[in-house]
Order: sequence, then C-alpha cells, then structure tokens
Amino acid sequence: MGPPPTAARGTNVGYVPYFDAASAAPLHPVAREALLASLDEGWADPARLYREGRRGRLLLDAAREAAAEAVGCRPDELVFTPSGTQAVHAGVAGALAGRRRAGRRLLHSAVEHSSVLHAAEAHAAAGGTVAELAVDRTGRVAAGDVAAALTPDTALVAVQSANHEVGTEQPVEEVAELCQEAGVPLLVDAAQSLAWGPVPGAWSLLTASAHKWGGPPGVGLLAVRKGTRFAPQGPRDEREAGRSAGFENIPAVVAAAAALRALRSGPAADTEAARLRELVDRIRTRVPELVPDVEVVGDPVHRLPHLVTFSCLYVDGETLLHELDRAGFSVSSGSSCTSSTLTPSHVLRAMGVLSEGNVRISLPYGTAEADVERFLEVLPGVVRSVRERLGVRGAEPGAGAADTAGAAPQGPSPAVAAEPAGAAAEKAAGEAVPAGLVVDSLGRRCPIPVIELAKAIGQVPVGGTVTVLSDDEAARQDIPAWCGMRDQEYVGERAAERGAAYMVRRRV
Amino acid sequence: MGPPPTAARGTNVGYVPYFDAASAAPLHPVAREALLASLDEGWADPARLYREGRRGRLLLDAAREAAAEAVGCRPDELVFTPSGTQAVHAGVAGALAGRRRAGRRLLHSAVEHSSVLHAAEAHAAAGGTVAELAVDRTGRVAAGDVAAALTPDTALVAVQSANHEVGTEQPVEEVAELCQEAGVPLLVDAAQSLAWGPVPGAWSLLTASAHKWGGPPGVGLLAVRKGTRFAPQGPRDEREAGRSAGFENIPAVVAAAAALRALRSGPAADTEAARLRELVDRIRTRVPELVPDVEVVGDPVHRLPHLVTFSCLYVDGETLLHELDRAGFSVSSGSSCTSSTLTPSHVLRAMGVLSEGNVRISLPYGTAEADVERFLEVLPGVVRSVRERLGVRGAEPGAGAADTAGAAPQGPSPAVAAEPAGAAAEKAAGEAVPAGLVVDSLGRRCPIPVIELAKAIGQVPVGGTVTVLSDDEAARQDIPAWCGMRDQEYVGERAAERGAAYMVRRRV
Repeated sequence: MGPPPTAARGTNVGYVPYFDAASAAPLHPVAREALLASLDEGWADPARLYREGRRGRLLLDAAREAAAEAVGCRPDELVFTPSGTQAVHAGVAGALAGRRRAGRRLLHSAVEHSSVLHAAEAHAAAGGTVAELAVDRTGRVAAGDVAAALTPDTALVAVQSANHEVGTEQPVEEVAELCQEAGVPLLVDAAQSLAWGPVPGAWSLLTASAHKWGGPPGVGLLAVRKGTRFAPQGPRDEREAGRSAGFENIPAVVAAAAALRALRSGPAADTEAARLRELVDRIRTRVPELVPDVEVVGDPVHRLPHLVTFSCLYVDGETLLHELDRAGFSVSSGSSCTSSTLTPSHVLRAMGVLSEGNVRISLPYGTAEADVERFLEVLPGVVRSVRERLGVRGAEPGAGAADTAGAAPQGPSPAVAAEPAGAAAEKAAGEAVPAGLVVDSLGRRCPIPVIELAKAIGQVPVGGTVTVLSDDEAARQDIPAWCGMRDQEYVGERAAERGAAYMVRRRV
Repeated sequence: MGPPPTAARGTNVGYVPYFDAASAAPLHPVAREALLASLDEGWADPARLYREGRRGRLLLDAAREAAAEAVGCRPDELVFTPSGTQAVHAGVAGALAGRRRAGRRLLHSAVEHSSVLHAAEAHAAAGGTVAELAVDRTGRVAAGDVAAALTPDTALVAVQSANHEVGTEQPVEEVAELCQEAGVPLLVDAAQSLAWGPVPGAWSLLTASAHKWGGPPGVGLLAVRKGTRFAPQGPRDEREAGRSAGFENIPAVVAAAAALRALRSGPAADTEAARLRELVDRIRTRVPELVPDVEVVGDPVHRLPHLVTFSCLYVDGETLLHELDRAGFSVSSGSSCTSSTLTPSHVLRAMGVLSEGNVRISLPYGTAEADVERFLEVLPGVVRSVRERLGVRGAEPGAGAADTAGAAPQGPSPAVAAEPAGAAAEKAAGEAVPAGLVVDSLGRRCPIPVIELAKAIGQVPVGGTVTVLSDDEAARQDIPAWCGMRDQEYVGERAAERGAAYMVRRRV
C-alpha cells in the first residue's frame, strides 16, 4: 500500500482512478468546454430584451431542448433546478399539492434517495400520510406490491429508476403502467440512471442531477409531463415556468446538457456501458474469491452498469475507506461509522443485508481497466490489515465461522458471561434455553458487536445461544445479516435496559 | 444611431458598454480564473472523506471565510444558497418560523425586491400577516416609520440596503438599532450593495446574490447572526448547516467569493466607486438638460454609486429600450410595457413617480467614460424619435405642457368629448364642475393615456377639467405623476364601468 500514483490522481485531465461517480462525477471535457463558452455568452438575464439577454435566452432554450431530448419529454415539460435535491423536493411537493383533492398519501420505495425521504417527512409533518414499499434482498421493489398499495387516496408514487447505493434497477416501466391505470402520477428519481439512457414508460414526473453525469454542480432537472396536475409550492417566482425559483444558471445548464448529449450520442456510449458492466462483473466475481467473509449486494443482472457494492464482515467501514484512500482509491460506504448520524444506510437496512465494512464502487466513464485490477490487488491486504487491528486473525478465503470465532482477540476480551447473568438473560429466564452466553457490547460500535458474537459462538454447543447486548444501531441490522451469512439461527431481538438484546442460536 | 461597435460588445474581454449591472454583471476576470481552477479541484462531494472530497471541503471553507469577511459576519453564520432569490426565500421563512411564538407579522418596505414580496405573499397565504412601510418620493424608508410600526407581534422586519431600481440607500443602520431595541430581527437584502461595502449595523439576517457583483450565477448568500432564532423550512437537508438544500456548487462559490474579495480589496475599489458615482452624477445632471420632460428619480446623494433611473414623459418604454439596444446600450426599465404583467414597477409606484418611458442605468465596474458620453449623445435623438412615432412633436428642452398639448398627433385623434358625455362624467354629474372634457383611452396602453391627457388639457380653460378613462394600470400612477411634473391639479380617481376615470383640473 504505497502512496497512490499522484500524477494520475492530482490532475483532472481525463479521468483519475476515482471510484465514487455515484456521488459526483468529474466534469466531462465537453461540459467544461461548454461552460467556458457560455460564461462569456450566458451571464445576462434571459428575461431581458437587449442582446445579452436574448443571447442568454437562446442558450437556455437550446439547453432545454437537448436535456428534454435526453429525458424523453417535451422542452416545455422540463425545468432546470439548482440541484437534483431541489428537483425532488419541488417535484414531490408540487405533485402532492396538485393532487390534494384526490388524497394526501405518498407511496415511495424504502430505498429512495434521502431527498425523497426528506420530502416525505416534510409531507408527513404537514399532515400528509406516507407509506413505504418494501424491497427484496436485492433492493428491488415488486411491481405487484405497488399495485396492492395503490389505495384510492394515493396522491403520488415515487420509485427511483435505479438505486444509488447498490445499483439495482427498479421495474419503473411496469410501475408506471400500474400507476397510469390507477390514475396516480409516478415520480421517477433518475439521478443515477439518466447518463445511461432515458427512463422508459409512462412516468409523470422525473428528476435528475447533472453532477452525477459529469455536468457541473448547480443543475438539476425536473420534468412534469403534460396532463400531470402540478401546483408549485413555496414563494412564487417567474423563472423556469414558476417551478424553480432564482436567476437561471445558464453556463451550468448549457454545460450539463452538452455533457448529457455527449454521453448519450453515438455507439461509444453503449460500448462504454458494456465495458464498465464487464469491469463491475469482474469485481462482483473476484472480490468474494479474494476476500473472505464478503457479501456482494444488489441485483447482479438488473443493475446500473458502473456500480457495485459489497460488505466485509468484521471490518470498520471508516478505517477501510481511509486505508483505501491512502492506497489511492476514493470509494463510498453505507456503514454506520461513515455516516454523521451513526446509523447504517437505510438502503442496506431495507434490503436486510450486512452494513459493516460496506464499500460502494461506482466507476466514472472512461475508468481504466488497470485501475480496477489494481483495486482488486490492493483490497485483500487492506481488509486483512483492518481486521487484524480489530483482533480478527486467520480469516482466509473459504474460512468459516469457526476460524474467525477461534481467532484470539488482540484487544481486550469481550465481556462474556455464562447465562443467566446479564439483564437480557434475566428477561429470558423461564424460557427453555440451552446453555448460553451473554456478550456485553454496550457502548461499542460496529463492527465490534458482530466480532464478539463471532468469537462467542464457538464457545457454546450447537443448539446453545449467544445473546449480544448492544446499543449500536448497526447491530440490529448486522447481527441478523451475519446469521444469514454464517448459517446460524437468528432468534430475535428484545428490549434491554440500554439498547437491545439480540439472541443467536448456534446451528453449525 | 448606427450599429454598435460590435468589437467591444461581442466579446466579454474586459467590460462592454452594458448598462444593466443591477440585473447581472459580466463575470469578473478573477471569478473566471477561480472558477476554472476550482472546476478541477472542487467537483467532488465535500462531505466525503477521500482526498477529492477533502479538497472540495477546503475550497468551500476558504470561500465561506472570504465571503463572511466581506459580509462582516462569522463563517459559521453564513451559508451559500443557489441564488439570491432562494437566500431571501429561505431567510424570510426561517426567521418567521423561528419567531413564531413572538408573532406572525412581517414588516417590509414597499420597495423591496420581488423575492421579498413573494416570500411575504407566501407568508400571508399561510396565515401570517404582512405590513408594508411606505417610502418617500426618493424611495427611502423613514426610520421613524419603522419605530412606529414595530408592534409587539412583529416577527421580522425586512429592509433592503439599497434599492435595485432607483439606487436609494435605506437607513439600515438606524433601522437595525430600532429593531434591536425592540427585540425584532432585521433582514437586510444587500443584493445591490454588497459589492460596494459591508452593510453596517446590528442586522440579524443578510442576503445577497453573486451574479450582481461579477460572480457566476448559481450563488446566493444567507447570513444569520448568532442569537437569531431561525428554523429552516422545507424538507431537511444536511448541506449548508441545514439552511440550503442540495449539493454544494463549490466552483461557483469559490469564484463568487474571489470576485467579491477582488472588488473590495485595495484602494482601487474606493476609486472605482467614486469614478462611477461621478459618471452617474453626470447622467443625473445632463439627461434633464438634453431631453425635455424627464424626471430623474431616486435619492441624489444617499444612493448606490453606479445606478441611476429616469423616466421620460410621452415615451413607450419598450420601444425606448429596443432603440437603445439598437444603438448599443443595454438598459433596463420599470415601465409597465416592459413587464410581463403589464403593471409598472412597484418601486416607482410606491415612490409616486412617473413610470412611463422609464430607464434604469447601472454601470458595471470599469465602465468607460466614453461609453457614458456616447449614451448622452445618443439618448436625445432616441427619445425624440420614439415620441415622434407616438405623435408627440415640438417637445424641446424647457418646453412646457402647452407645447406638448399643442402638438398635433400623427396617429388617430383621441376620443375627446365635451362633458357630460362618457360613463365617468355621468357619475360625476351633480358635482359643480367647470367645463370639462372626457378622454376615452380605454384599451390603450401606456404612454397613450398620458399623451392624450397632455393634448386635451390645452383645450379646457384654466379651472376646467379633463377626465381620462383608462383601463391601463400605468395610468393610475402616471396621471398623478404627470400632474406633479406639469403643475396641474390631480383631482382624483373614480371607478368606471371599465378601468377608472382619472380627473385632472387645469391649473396653468
């Protein structure tokens, strides 16, 4: 793990080995060129009648046409917003207000982007109702669930085109058809997918974000198809058909539209998508071969071409990201220790998969194959070193629970007590439990509770139980996930004086 | 009026003779340079832990410090928004919500920017109350009026630092002191003045817009001083301290802060302000000498250095702007015919001054003296030609009402009838009026009703009246203003079957 090749990383000429395109993609060269040109031509107020204003208006109109073509809507159905987040906020609020007579229920998938969840929260705070559509272990909504959930008072359905954390594509075309039949508008957050093609089907509203496709920051899209009831919320403003307040950012929208057109035009776009898809397949296949105790998540087939996510047992996500950064790889994570709220990603939670040691890789256009290969070379050593620091040794490809459970901790031993000691065990008294252990992980953060569970499980006989006391939010998700990966039986969770008690029964 | 020198106008190298800086200023060279540099360094998500993210965070922090210094607040009191409009919307809504227990009354000057008025409308629509502070004929709020209007339930006061249409500076320091004594926060919209210096005094909130000072579009500022109750409205978002939703536009904020610092640093800034102030004084003095029947509005002393507004009687604002554009000058107007709603500027209306033939000139930094001189050469001929097309002849410097009134119209004669014909006159029957005329200007737009009034006034004896029937919004403002300029007596307005009847008594 030497220093990264700074010559390639330090500049932004072409693409650098940066693997977090789903957060923000480096500026596309075409966007850069268009931005520079329109800084000189597009700075004036397009509402003005003089030539600088008219020139700005022409640029704005042309950008709108190009973006609408890429989206698959009419130019007068599309407005530019200052961000994808604001497109979602404005789209959700405007569609709900437009449908207020029909009802006040918002239905959205459990794996939507936080901007949709926050818009839903605001709706609930204002007296609306919100219902969530569950997803399967791949993160996919079942169209049948949507049909079942379409109550008469449903004002709006929101389902993303593809998930931002695990890449799973949603069945938006089917969902759109069901919504259309029910007369309910569908809002599709296409932030992650628009670079790869238009969203098919009879959606009513669509949102997107330019910096995800190599456009500059400061540009979102909101399309509202004709016939969709829409009542803009917030103080009125005459710009952008009254749907997005504030002076138009013409240089940025010109650059955003140019980048989108460039990405989509010609056969190169399909070739590039296929190439990245193959690179991601390589990661999906080889990471579990190279690194023990890894779960690759998300749909392996119905997915974005450039995005893959996996989680590593017994690994602290923040340290893993830090070490990967030192090795020259910029990736993202849905682990709780990398979030400001210390809660794991709601997407991984909804899928019921492991969140600890989570790594999301999203390859920008033009990612070099060599960079992916180098990542695959570096990753095993990085994970091993993080595990060693946490006192987990001996984990090798193919190693099972016993290996890990048998590893001697380097740090302080977990507080392990024979049942019925411990608050949770007391509550369990009276149940017919075989000999069991209680592990007190209170005050310890992910991945420690799972590591202690793995160590303790070897100390009880098959049929015996380990109860983990934990006040870490990630434990609620990761202990059942660990059981699934390890073929152990997850008995369930009970409230405890602090946090919760999670009981696992040894099966193997 | 030949074609403009396109070499100077067609490119944006240096400043072009563009006189609408108050709408949007051309990008400052320092902003351009900073933008280019930060496109390469500041595209990643500053919330991420990897190096591209950390680099973005450093740039964002530095831009915040620079902007805060220019504003005169602490960096943690300032957030970047996507526009000045959104800064105002967020600032007004957040301050009102934060003070909800104190009351729900918003007090603002009658000459605030439309973004403040729209935020006030939204507040009223949500059940709040709104009160307006009147201004004098220069557009200035009296601090004493603020003191008198500060009721116990006043939650927020909004007074701009300087007016965007007429340049008049408001007594914000005094107003801030009064507000502080009353325990009511003051929001100062500093969009027009921030380039020229910080807003003095104990204001609580401040908003601004970067494209007004040569920053790029896409950047507003919202400062909320510590101790000010503030509750952000709308869906929550973790960016910008929860006060402005959406992915940070780092290249643009870096460029905006760099331009502001460049404008403000060194003695050059003061010199430039003094130089532009002198150019504006020249326009203020010479336009009324060169063009007959002109009213220069706004405070001649307490004003922005670079902005001047005047109105020309018997002139159609849209045609005037078009002709000035053909002559190479890009200016703005508050005339009704240049607004999408066909209502005159609310600022001119609140001041009680003429709105027809209105021209706002706002000089960007670096405006060449020669361009101003050329404007002064061109303007008289342009105004004359517009008047001639409207059938107004013989208007020369120093010419009075009689000259204009005596001019023979080139177009169709106004419908003039001896009283008591006409709907309005019928309603006036029974009043002891001397011989009078009724002019039917229904369906005719500004400046026609005033032109017809000017023609008719010569046809009644001193003491006689002319009643103008008009359904043009501008007449309500411009007929009294004409009376003021012409020393005629404005009797008043009565409702009519269509529009209103405006009665004028001949005094001279």
